[in-house]
Amino acid sequence: MSELRHDPIQKRWVIIATGRSERPDSFSVEYADVGGEEDCPFCPGREHMTPPEIAAYREGDGGPDSEGWTVRVVPNKYPALRIEGELTRRGVGLYDQIAGIGAHEVVIEGPDHEGGIAGMDLAHATAVYHMLQERLRDLMLDGRFKYVLLFKNEGAPAGATLAHPHHQIIATPVTPKTVAMELNSAKEHYLRKERCLFCDIINQEIEAGDRVVTLTDHFVAFAPYASRSPFELFIAPRHHQHSFTDASPESLRGLAEIMQDVLGRLRNGLDHPPFNYVFHSSPNTDSEPKRPNHWATLKHDFHWHIEIVPRLTRMAGFEWGTGFYINPTPPEAAAQFLRTIDPRPGGKGSSLDEPTGRE
Amino acid sequence: MSELRHDPIQKRWVIIATGRSERPDSFSVEYADVGGEEDCPFCPGREHMTPPEIAAYREGDGGPDSEGWTVRVVPNKYPALRIEGELTRRGVGLYDQIAGIGAHEVVIEGPDHEGGIAGMDLAHATAVYHMLQERLRDLMLDGRFKYVLLFKNEGAPAGATLAHPHHQIIATPVTPKTVAMELNSAKEHYLRKERCLFCDIINQEIEAGDRVVTLTDHFVAFAPYASRSPFELFIAPRHHQHSFTDASPESLRGLAEIMQDVLGRLRNGLDHPPFNYVFHSSPNTDSEPKRPNHWATLKHDFHWHIEIVPRLTRMAGFEWGTGFYINPTPPEAAAQFLRTIDPRPGGKGSSLDEPTGRE
Repeated sequence: MSELRHDPIQKRWVIIATGRSERPDSFSVEYADVGGEEDCPFCPGREHMTPPEIAAYREGDGGPDSEGWTVRVVPNKYPALRIEGELTRRGVGLYDQIAGIGAHEVVIEGPDHEGGIAGMDLAHATAVYHMLQERLRDLMLDGRFKYVLLFKNEGAPAGATLAHPHHQIIATPVTPKTVAMELNSAKEHYLRKERCLFCDIINQEIEAGDRVVTLTDHFVAFAPYASRSPFELFIAPRHHQHSFTDASPESLRGLAEIMQDVLGRLRNGLDHPPFNYVFHSSPNTDSEPKRPNHWATLKHDFHWHIEIVPRLTRMAGFEWGTGFYINPTPPEAAAQFLRTIDPRPGGKGSSLDEPTGRE
Repeated sequence: MSELRHDPIQKRWVIIATGRSERPDSFSVEYADVGGEEDCPFCPGREHMTPPEIAAYREGDGGPDSEGWTVRVVPNKYPALRIEGELTRRGVGLYDQIAGIGAHEVVIEGPDHEGGIAGMDLAHATAVYHMLQERLRDLMLDGRFKYVLLFKNEGAPAGATLAHPHHQIIATPVTPKTVAMELNSAKEHYLRKERCLFCDIINQEIEAGDRVVTLTDHFVAFAPYASRSPFELFIAPRHHQHSFTDASPESLRGLAEIMQDVLGRLRNGLDHPPFNYVFHSSPNTDSEPKRPNHWATLKHDFHWHIEIVPRLTRMAGFEWGTGFYINPTPPEAAAQFLRTIDPRPGGKGSSLDEPTGRE
């Protein structure tokens, strides 16, 4: 059983796995090397190797945990938080603790052991985002969960332990600090200007253009002005929408399209970099206990988006301890470079093929 | 020339190196593999390979940039921020920017290419902390700098680019977000209770004891209740002191002693793990422009300390994007394990020598 602990200095929550072995090598299980195809539990025909499935899209008429699925959701075998139990809260002297209640699911993107979003056909990629939205909506019905995180780790340096393309979902009884900070900034901006902070930023970026990588009818992808790391990207719907749960089927298709585009550019331009991406959507306003008016303007001031962080640098040390980032690649240069790259599978990065004149 | 950019969503500052090459391979220079002894610019006899020295302790009577030093401070050859120039501030639409003014220094711990704090004699380790304090005091005299960061990266996975033992110093025209958060939490606690938050935590930890690794007359080292990562450690003076600049020579010796102890335990118990540590001291209250009363109670409510983070897990992905940490090793287990380790050079970790019964 794990627990959530609150740091009164940094005001952040941490999930502590208290029930695990106390040996210092005990965490190696979760951070093992990415496994090969021969024993991959996410490949078709090995459905028995995962816990019973939560949801799936199937083309044939097979039952749960049979082959023939295109997208499949299962509980994480080593969950950070568990779904069963009561949401107890207690004080420990100065500190605060919450029982490790939550959900931890894995969305297997397809039967192929390799590839992922950027290599699929558009309909399949759309189905992946459709499934993520469906799970988000379902988990939001549980009043114990304040927030539901959708994210993806690709490559071992980005924390992935299995190579088979998958997303993860963690539902938590608290709102993550980074999201809370965004909600507060957005609320502050809205109260002052009666405009969405994100809409303002999106409009300014589209007008300036020098940090934009891809612009479609419905979405924009740009390198943030204060990017923390090289080739960090921000993807958002161009028109105001506070929650990813509200995205229309057409919008999901547009999302799949732009994600295929930018992930393809990263793959081709930076030679399959490891990366993380995280959805920031609005929190579960139906969770208990309610805090009336805390983020009451939410429909107007928050704006869902995705942050992609390629893991190219060993930057997280000093930065991790101070919240102060040093980024050696200006976002304007990152965007300019990515715009030159062909995002299609097998498409080559134009600039990287030229001799660089450097060792 | 670099610049500081402010993110209006996360309210964090980022240093962007705008003057560097725009090629995507341009950041590889800074993140090159840790070099060997044969061409180490920090080894004695190669003083000409660094920029002219800023300060040094010498046993003989050699001049600056000659051999015979025991601790030596030089400007970083690839500084994140530059000392020359005016601290201009401007708006860029919604965004804020500050010129990349600051200081970036390297404190070479000693002539030995290997070893570092845990392997030195106590007097030498004390001299390293004495030098750090001296540089901190000096940089605080510059009214352009709001904050001076003292930190150490050890090992390539922790971001070190040179193996020769060294600390780094970065003086910034803004207070890093993590430090600002601590200052605010401490102030809030003080206004409510008229007690220092850190003193309260330290007293509670010493009383509880289960997370304490080492307790000396002047210092305590413990694994924080809400540790973000396995074997994270917090080291602080037991008696209230708001700034590291105020530490007495006796206290510096005490600091060297406990740092040798805990770094020795990490080295012996976890097989030379890469790690980062960061000093959190109070900001430069003499910097301009002054914000009266903002952190006016500082002498009472802040309490300097050091945070050590061994880099054992590939955790920084999802966590990095959300501020939500998952720690597979409970701090009580980490502390219990480290207490069993002999911190002396060559001292072996008792438990790790036993068979674990795991693959």
